[in-house]
Formats: sequence, C-alpha cells, structure tokens
Amino acid sequence: MNSDSVAMMDLHEKLHKKETTVCIFGTGDFGRSLGLRLLQSGYSVVYGSRDPKNSLLLPKGSKVMAHAAAACEASVIFVAVQREHYGFLTHLAPDLEGKVLVDVSNNIKMGLYPESNAEYLSRLVPGATIVKAFNTISAWALQSGGLDANRQVLICGDQAEAKQQVVDIAQSLGFTALDKGSLRAAAGLEDLPLQLFPLWRLPFCIAIGLAAFIFFYVLTRDVIYERVTNGKDISFRIMISLANKVFPIVSLVMLALCYLPGALAGFLQLYNGTKYRRFPDWLDRWMLCRKQLGLLALAFAFLHVLYTFVIPIRYYVRYRINVYTLSLVKDNKTYEFDNVAAWRHDSYYSMGILGFGLFVLLGITSLPSVSNSLNWKEFSFVQSKLGYTTVLLCTAHAFLYGWDKFLKPYKWWMPPAYMLSLVVPCVVLILKLILITPCVDRKVTRIRQGWERQSKTSANCRDGKTNQPLMA
Amino acid sequence: MNSDSVAMMDLHEKLHKKETTVCIFGTGDFGRSLGLRLLQSGYSVVYGSRDPKNSLLLPKGSKVMAHAAAACEASVIFVAVQREHYGFLTHLAPDLEGKVLVDVSNNIKMGLYPESNAEYLSRLVPGATIVKAFNTISAWALQSGGLDANRQVLICGDQAEAKQQVVDIAQSLGFTALDKGSLRAAAGLEDLPLQLFPLWRLPFCIAIGLAAFIFFYVLTRDVIYERVTNGKDISFRIMISLANKVFPIVSLVMLALCYLPGALAGFLQLYNGTKYRRFPDWLDRWMLCRKQLGLLALAFAFLHVLYTFVIPIRYYVRYRINVYTLSLVKDNKTYEFDNVAAWRHDSYYSMGILGFGLFVLLGITSLPSVSNSLNWKEFSFVQSKLGYTTVLLCTAHAFLYGWDKFLKPYKWWMPPAYMLSLVVPCVVLILKLILITPCVDRKVTRIRQGWERQSKTSANCRDGKTNQPLMA
Amino acid sequence: MNSDSVAMMDLHEKLHKKETTVCIFGTGDFGRSLGLRLLQSGYSVVYGSRDPKNSLLLPKGSKVMAHAAAACEASVIFVAVQREHYGFLTHLAPDLEGKVLVDVSNNIKMGLYPESNAEYLSRLVPGATIVKAFNTISAWALQSGGLDANRQVLICGDQAEAKQQVVDIAQSLGFTALDKGSLRAAAGLEDLPLQLFPLWRLPFCIAIGLAAFIFFYVLTRDVIYERVTNGKDISFRIMISLANKVFPIVSLVMLALCYLPGALAGFLQLYNGTKYRRFPDWLDRWMLCRKQLGLLALAFAFLHVLYTFVIPIRYYVRYRINVYTLSLVKDNKTYEFDNVAAWRHDSYYSMGILGFGLFVLLGITSLPSVSNSLNWKEFSFVQSKLGYTTVLLCTAHAFLYGWDKFLKPYKWWMPPAYMLSLVVPCVVLILKLILITPCVDRKVTRIRQGWERQSKTSANCRDGKTNQPLMA
Repeated sequence: MNSDSVAMMDLHEKLHKKETTVCIFGTGDFGRSLGLRLLQSGYSVVYGSRDPKNSLLLPKGSKVMAHAAAACEASVIFVAVQREHYGFLTHLAPDLEGKVLVDVSNNIKMGLYPESNAEYLSRLVPGATIVKAFNTISAWALQSGGLDANRQVLICGDQAEAKQQVVDIAQSLGFTALDKGSLRAAAGLEDLPLQLFPLWRLPFCIAIGLAAFIFFYVLTRDVIYERVTNGKDISFRIMISLANKVFPIVSLVMLALCYLPGALAGFLQLYNGTKYRRFPDWLDRWMLCRKQLGLLALAFAFLHVLYTFVIPIRYYVRYRINVYTLSLVKDNKTYEFDNVAAWRHDSYYSMGILGFGLFVLLGITSLPSVSNSLNWKEFSFVQSKLGYTTVLLCTAHAFLYGWDKFLKPYKWWMPPAYMLSLVVPCVVLILKLILITPCVDRKVTRIRQGWERQSKTSANCRDGKTNQPLMA
Repeated sequence: MNSDSVAMMDLHEKLHKKETTVCIFGTGDFGRSLGLRLLQSGYSVVYGSRDPKNSLLLPKGSKVMAHAAAACEASVIFVAVQREHYGFLTHLAPDLEGKVLVDVSNNIKMGLYPESNAEYLSRLVPGATIVKAFNTISAWALQSGGLDANRQVLICGDQAEAKQQVVDIAQSLGFTALDKGSLRAAAGLEDLPLQLFPLWRLPFCIAIGLAAFIFFYVLTRDVIYERVTNGKDISFRIMISLANKVFPIVSLVMLALCYLPGALAGFLQLYNGTKYRRFPDWLDRWMLCRKQLGLLALAFAFLHVLYTFVIPIRYYVRYRINVYTLSLVKDNKTYEFDNVAAWRHDSYYSMGILGFGLFVLLGITSLPSVSNSLNWKEFSFVQSKLGYTTVLLCTAHAFLYGWDKFLKPYKWWMPPAYMLSLVVPCVVLILKLILITPCVDRKVTRIRQGWERQSKTSANCRDGKTNQPLMA
Repeated sequence: MNSDSVAMMDLHEKLHKKETTVCIFGTGDFGRSLGLRLLQSGYSVVYGSRDPKNSLLLPKGSKVMAHAAAACEASVIFVAVQREHYGFLTHLAPDLEGKVLVDVSNNIKMGLYPESNAEYLSRLVPGATIVKAFNTISAWALQSGGLDANRQVLICGDQAEAKQQVVDIAQSLGFTALDKGSLRAAAGLEDLPLQLFPLWRLPFCIAIGLAAFIFFYVLTRDVIYERVTNGKDISFRIMISLANKVFPIVSLVMLALCYLPGALAGFLQLYNGTKYRRFPDWLDRWMLCRKQLGLLALAFAFLHVLYTFVIPIRYYVRYRINVYTLSLVKDNKTYEFDNVAAWRHDSYYSMGILGFGLFVLLGITSLPSVSNSLNWKEFSFVQSKLGYTTVLLCTAHAFLYGWDKFLKPYKWWMPPAYMLSLVVPCVVLILKLILITPCVDRKVTRIRQGWERQSKTSANCRDGKTNQPLMA
C-alpha cells in the first residue's frame, strides 16, 4: 500500500503542479527572466537573495527571502548564480537536503575549470539532486516567449525523477525538453553556448586556404608576369578582375569537394562489400561538413555573379571597348561576326546561370525549416540528383569559359587558372559516372539496403533511409 | 476498487517511465540509432536478435538476447525489421501476447503490397496491439538529436492506451507526436516517405508544358522565320535571347495562374451566395497548389533577371553596338536622343525591378519558418495585397516592354510572344478589379464572414479567418 | 482518503483521456475543423447546434444535438460562436455549471468592445470556468495538420486545472501550448490575430519618411536645378537614376540606425556604471525594432543592386556612351587611361559587393529557423562583428563613390546627396571605435557581466548572455 500512496501523492502533485512553488537563487538577468516566465505560467516564485530588502527589479508577484528560507518553500531550486559564488551553498547544505538543484550556469571561456559547474555543485551539496538544464537558453529567449529564439531545453542529470520535474517545468514554459543523459554530459552542455560555429571551422579554413593560393597564383600569372615581362602596371585589376577569377575557382572546387566524399564512400562500400564497416575518420569528418562546404561554395558563387554583373559598368571595361572601337574606326575595319564565338559565349553564360540557379535552390533547401519539411526521398533527390546536375553545369561553364585557352603558351609554365578549378570536379564526375553505370549501381544499391558480401544481418535493417544525407 | 488500483499501477509506471525497458527487434541502422537515443533518454534497451552473439556495433549499455527472451523484458517492442522478414514473428506469437508492437517499417516502392505493413503485422500477431510510428523519422534524424531534421512523429493505431505509450516515448526522445487515427491510416503513413514532391507535380508539369510551348513558338517566330525568309542563321540566339523570352513569359503566366483560382473562387461564392458549398474538384486542386505555382514562377523570374543582367557582356550585344557605332561614324550621323524612349525604357526596367523585389518578398514569406511567425491577417496581407501588386507591376512591365510592338505586322500571323503572356494576367486583374468594387466587395466580405443568401447557420462561424490562404 | 480518490479519478481520466468526449458549440468552419482534428486524435466529438437536423458538412463520426444535450456529454466545451451570438448561452447556464468553456473567438476589429470576449463570456456564464485558447489558430491550420502553419496555442484563464485540460487537448492535437496567464490576458490574445506587423510599423515609417525626403532632395538638386538653370528636361532620370540614388542612401542610413542604439546603449551603461538601470523608453523601443530596420535596409540595398546592374542596358546610358565615342572620333582624340580612376572605381564596386554579400548573410541569419539554430555567441558574432564590418564596407563604398565630389561647387547650397548618407554611419563607426578601444572595452565588458560601480548584486548574474541581441 505504501508505494501506491506515494504514487498518489506524486500524482496529486503532478496534476496540481501549476500551484507549486519554484525557488530561484540569484536575482540577475537570468533569474529575473526565469521568474517572470514561471509566474506567467502559473507557478509561484520565491527568490533567494543575500540581501532580500535591496532586491529591486524583481517581477511582480514574486517573493524575496533569505536563501535558507526560500529553499524551504520549494522542492525545485534554480541556481542562477555564477560558479565563482557557489561557495555560499555549502553553508546551506542542510536546507538543500533532498531538493532538486537546477544548475543553469555557463562559463566565460571553455576549459576554465577541470570539472563542469554542475558536477562541482553536486560535490558541494551532496545531499541534493543536481540537474543541469536551461544553460543554452538566454534570458532574452525567456523574455521573448520562445517564439523567436531557440526553444529546446537540454537537460542532463543522474536521477530520472528529478529530471522529469525539470522537463515538466520546461514544457509548461513552452519549451521542448531533450534529455542528454547523466550528469557527466553537463560539461558538454556547458561548452555548447561557448562554441563558435564548430562545424564551419574546417570548411572555412579550406575556403581561406584555397582562396589565398588561387589569389597568389593568379596575381603572379597575371599582374606580376605583366610587370616583369612588359613593365606594365595592371595592379588595379586586383580589385575586380582577379577577385572574379578567384571566387569562381574556389566556388567550383568547394562544390566538388562537397560531393567527392559521397563518391569516395560509395567506392569504399563497394570495396568493403558492406555498409556496416565504419568509414575512416577523415572521411567521416569530411562527410559531416559537406553542408558547410556547399554553402561556402554558394557564397563564393554569389560573389562571382555580382562581380560578373558589375563588369560592363567598370571604368576599365568601358575604356577598353572605346579604345577598340576607335581603333576600328582608325583602321577603317569592321567587327567580324563569329558565329562560333556567339554560340560559345552564350552557352557559357547560360550554363553558368542555370548552374547558379540550381545552386541557389540547393541552398534554399538546406535552410532548416525547408529541409525539415522534406521527406528523406525528397531531400536526397534534391541534394544528390540536383546537386550532381549543378556540378555538371558549373563544370561545363568552366570548360566553355576556357575553350581553347589551354592551347596557348603558358606564362612561366603556369597553366591558366581555370584549369586548376577543373581537376576536382572532373574527378567527382568521373567517379559518379562509374557509380551510376547499371552494374555498379545495382551493387551499391544492394549494399545500401543492407546486403553484405557474406550476408549475416541482412534481415535487420530498413531500406534506403539509413545512409547519411548527401549534403545535409 | 479494481479500476482504481489499475489506475494506480498505470500511474506508477508513468511517473517512473524512465526506468522502463524498451525492446527492439532488429539490429540494423534504424534499430541501433533508436536504441542509442532511447539509452540517452534514460530507457533500458534490449535487442532481440537471431544471432545474439554476433551482434556488433550495438550501442553501449544495451543488452542483446534471442527474440523470445528480449520480448519478455518489455511491454513495448519496436519491430525494426523489413516486412519480408516478419515471418519469424508468427513463431513468437505467444511471447508477444498483450505487448505493444511498434511497426517502424517502410517499403522500397509504393503499392508493393495490398495491405500496409502494420496491418499485415497485426494479422500475423493478432494477440499484440500494433502501433504504426516513427516510419517518417530516419536513422539519421534519430542520431542527430532532432535538431536539424524533421521532429514530428506520426502515429496511428487502434488502441488509445498503446498509442499513448508510444507518444510518451516519442516525447521523451525530444520529438513531437501527432496522432493520425486508426491503424487503417498506416498505409498512408507508409506512403509518406516514398512520395516525391506530390504537391509540386502538377505545377511542375504546367511549367514544363508552358515553357516548351513558348519555346517552340518563339523559335518558329524568330529563328525559323528568319532562316526561311532571309536565309540567315541566328540559331545562336537560342541560348540567351530566346531563353530570356521564354522565362519571363512563363513566369508571368504562372504568377497569374497562382491568383486566378482565388478570383474564380470569389465569383463562385458570389454566384452560390454562400461559402459553405464545396468548390468543384479542379478548383480545389488548383487552389491547393498555388504556393508551388508561385514559387516556380519566382524561379523563372529569377532566371529572367540573371539572363537580363548578362546581356551587356554578351559577345553578340557588344558586336551589335560596335556595328551601330561604326555605321554612325561612316554615315557621319549622330544618335538622336528620344525622350519618350528614355522614359519608356527606364519605366519598363523600374516596374520589372520593383515587381521582382516584391516577388522575392512573397517568396521569403512563404518559407515555413517565416510564414509560421505571421498571423492570419499578416499572411493574407502579404499574399493577397502584395501579391496582386506584384501581378500589377509585372503586367505593367510586360506592357511597357511591348509598347507599340503589337502594331507591327505579324510574322506568319504569329503575334509577338509577349502578347501571349498578357492574357492571363489581364484576366486576373480585371476579375480582381470587379471583386474590389465597393458593392461587390461588401457582398463577398459578408459571404466570407459566414452570411448566406438564405442564411441558416450564420451564427455558427468565426470571422474572416476561415477561407484558405491565397498563396499559402 | 477523499483527496486521494479524487486524485485517482483525475488520474484515471487523464490516462484514458483519448476516450473522453469534447463538445463544440457552433458548426462553422472553425468548429468543423476542430471537430475533425479532435476525431482524428481519438476524441469523441459532440456538436451543439440550434438546428441539429439541418447541420450538414459536419465531420463523419461526430454527433449533433441541441446545445443543452450536447453540453451534458462533455466536461470541456469549445464555444466556436461569434461574440454577438453569445446571448443564447445565458439560457444554458444551468447546463454549463462546472464545465470548462473554451473561448476561441476573435473580433473583426480591435477595440470593438470594452472587455474581451472571454471575460464577457465569463460574466454571462459565471458558473463555468472560462479558458481562452486556440484563437490564434486558424481553421486552415487545424485542417492542414499543423505542419505548415503556426503550431503554438496560446492559453489563458484563471483556473490552473481547467487550463491544464485545454493544454492536454492542444498537445494531443499536435500543437504546443503556451500559458499566457490569467483571463485578463484574453484581451491581448484577442488582439493578436488582428495586428498587422506591429513591430514593422516604426521602421517602415522611418523608411518611407527618409525615402521621401531624399527623393525630393535629389529631385530638386538634379532635375529641377537642371530645368531652372539650363532649361533642360531630364525628368526621365526619375525612374532609375534618382531611384538608384535614393535606395542606397536610405539603405545605408537605416543600416547605421540599426547599429546606433547598440552603441548608444553602451555609452549609457558606461555613464550609469551599471547595466541594471532601465534604458529610456525611446531607446528601448528603438532597440526592439533593430531587426526590422536592418531587414528594410537590406530590401533597399537589394533594389539598389538591381538598379545598378540594369544601368548598362539602359537606353540613356547607351546613348551617352555612343555620343562620347562619336565625339572622340570627331575630335580625333583618344580615351586617356587614368590608373587612379581604374583603382577607385574597382575598389568602389568591390566594397559595395562585399558589403552587400555580408548584408545578405546577416539577412539569412535573421530567418527564424536559422537564428534558432545558432547559440548566443554565434548569433552575437554574426550580428555584431559581421554587422559592423558590413557598416564599414558600405560606408567605404559611399566614400569611394563620392571621392572628390564634395569639393565641387554645390548647387543651390545643397551638397551632393551621398554626403547626407554618410553622417549617421560615421557617427556609428566613431562611437564603436571608442567602445572597442581596450580601456573602454574592458569597462563595458565588466558592466555587461554584471559589475556595478558600487557593486551590490554582482554575485547574482550570468555572464555575457543577458544583454539584448544586437540585431535580433
């Protein structure tokens, strides 16, 4: 009968939870915003403060008490205090016995302390149950009602019931809760708000490195070569002409780099004869940043488009056209129309525009709210089929741009820059071409559906939807 | 007293659900990802496997047993096995008596089997309660914590309590659950991951058909006519000049097609004297794909803009300008400035740019995350008021482009292509003009607020917000 | 024992809630859609209607009765009737005793009635518990399964348990629920669906006012001046040349206005020596509309880009180039190449393009679904660091455009328009420059981390994440 009545009490509490009191230690921004939100959702709020009489700015309807008194009022206590000031909690240990302490703290830098704030708190107040939560939510998100800001509360802790109490509170406030496991996960949660685009770091370095290399290559081949051999200073070309060579090359190479790991993975699966063997680490890491590679490539493509459209209003271009026209007048010649040139130029622009249009479409579908509304089949259709079409169009664009330039004598043994941009895309297209030949394709499809060369576990898998997204 | 103690037991279980055990049949990708996620959220996980000793790669902390043994450990069993292998479950029927079996399976193709996998499972194991769920969630979404992937779990089944158990699990894993009704809905759920843009199919066909028609029209009128009558080959114009005629025409027609059904519906409601009579099917289907029509029109408009900006750097255009300048030099003439032409050209570009700007705005507001943050009034303001302004600007753009071209003699009795693009937009604008005249507008507004010609149910409705979005 | 059995009954009810019956008064669009959705989620639905026999179009599986009979069937009754028809409820008061009435109504205009519909209902039926909910959800959102429409149900009411019942229903239907407090909040909820972009109003007025002022300034200085002094009519320039002066100026000023309040706030905090003193109201309101200011600035920048790219295909521009070339031919002169001009022009375009590129990036990160996926540090990096870089690039773009134009004699004492655009950005950049000098920066950082000149509450705050977003 005992456990039943406990259950009933719990239940009673649960059903009437909106009348329960929540305690908040700390009257800073976060404490105040949290209190306000709790009050709005029907909770009673008691603040614990060192100086209860001088606590201004607290939300209307809340009470302020000394820490110990406040702790007695509630079973859940939010500790909205910086880690450096946790010391006072040791004196309160008797009052906190059996309470649920919610650690919402963050640090200013990563790796400042050997253990997470939550684990430190757990060591300071061993009699209480510690739950780490809400640290990824800002005071601003609490105030603005969660409509415009991140609405996911990450929670971890060692005791399931304590976590459930915090989950209930989070849901009452209009957030969704995600359990991240035991208190050992707290260190990870505390790092989250301090990270600065971790997934973008590698692609960004690749982009910068590539852009720098291409820039110096083009600078040497165009500007410095001209200076050394002809003594002419055409350094003004850096701002647009060179930039407009660097951007498209980087864009095309990065777009290809975004599809290369998928093709390599296909070959690796063919070689392994199974999809259940892990990829090497470098390939895994590469595959995880494909979305970022693709979006950076799109940014460079966007700049390339803008730089291209600005060409006809450039001073230098108008000057050149003028000089050419005047020279024709002088020599009494006319512009000979070259039908092949007309076809080539127009095709070249057309490929570029269509490629860019598809590329923008890929970018739009990688917006979180759009990709969330696609099912797996649609997502992989867009990112794989349309993605390879984009690579194909952009590569064709580069080939048509180059045309017969590769036949001209190299300057200082350096081939024209556009040729550099074609290596990776061609590799990707050839690999893909092999992968989609019927006989290879059949094998890959079977492997991706769970078949293995010495099949053991083929019964235990679902079809098609288990490989990673191709440009997620 | 009996029902009370049942309730108490249930309750007890519910409050302590995080210590419950969940069983998973199948150790494929999905089974493994699901198990990992369950473990992270505090569940115990037991795998059922044909070959418990050879099951590698399973998440740490989970147990593996033979199917029958695993089934005894839990009340909820996820069947992460392909339909073809369901056979083994018949032998387990006694062990599965009274259990909740969650069918997460999908098929490779639509219509492969006469009945849904879940119903088939229900026939195989009549003693268990079948719930269809999680089939729209990929292994990848399970692994990535649901932050970046679709977070809605669709659930159906015949028994409410069994469904509630699965809903609880889904919510613990950080997903939201949506009940889709009885097990008969399973066939629909199983089709969902296999659909490829079902709503886009009709608009896409319209776009392709329209583009093909306009292309051949323009090809005949421009290139073939020139070839036949003057013997000149200007086929190079296909790549840009013709494309840049096809895209804007298709774009304008599709934009108008996107607003036509709304206007027709208004007239139909006027004719019916009520909004409670169903629209004919074709109109319903048309109205449901307006968003897609609009977005495809935007894509074509985007290409039109790019093709236009590329004009001045085209080889052919530079050639033409050069030839014209040289001819002026030769004949010792000057370019006569025509003030009307200056006004007309600039107005034409201006209308086009402003129309395109508004069109992009419409596109942005139709992104799921943006349209979700608008209330009904804002949404209909953007999609209706701004939408019709866009149609108006783009139509004016086309009229200014044409100017007096319609007066010129037709080639082979074919009017200039731009005239084709003006028919539908003009119809839409005239219909809208009629609908917003005060007397008609008053009637339509009353009808949309629930008024009926022989009013019966006018008391039972809410105002304004019940008609479909105009370009949702 | 009494309270326990109540709890048990409650519990029982809760666990079996899917079999409970919900009553809906009103058979209009909203009532029908709600009923259909409730049925799909496993509820039984009873409609209350004045004329039960003539109620067509109701979802299959629902029952229709007279109001009083329907009310007896359920404990929760949705009142989907317009406020004007609430009268009949007074006669039903005895049947509604102890029931939960959910008011879902909206009005056609704001401020039509002195009290909210829900409070009016509460006065009419004092024996029932009124909960305001679902009024921000459209019939359309109910039908479409909440996938594509706003999924947040706002709820308010005076009694916690009644609210909890409605929260449970909302969650069963796949919505998230947000408690907005007591029934007094109902008036606010009822205003929500009637608001038209409230946050955009001020920025929009600023944009319009600024654009009008700049337009008339430029019109006077360019067109009217030319007419008056030289008698030449160049009014055709209004459409593009003038527009392309107005748009960039408005864009740059508004971009700067979007960063000015942040800088002012920094100085105010320095002056106050604390971040805990409230900002003056005008600054608060200004800071709250920074996102909107920024996005409008982006829209103007976008138009500026389009207007710029259209320049070389303008009739007038081609005419001017032609005239210039012919004049060179006539005078037998050549175009002198000016290296400084080439550098200046190319740098000017380059700054503009890079600035616009960054600006677009800022715009993309302010999309709800993107900004939700950023943590605080990332968001403030993008909006602050990248934001100020954007201001810097765009200001440099304007300076390079102007170059030495400020030295030319003014027309009618009016300086060139571009100079107007530089005032605010320069102020912003200078203020920012002061704020990031090491000594000032240290102080501001300490203040933002909670330090106060006579520190009292420094223990009670969290670091860094409590100030408002800079361009949220």
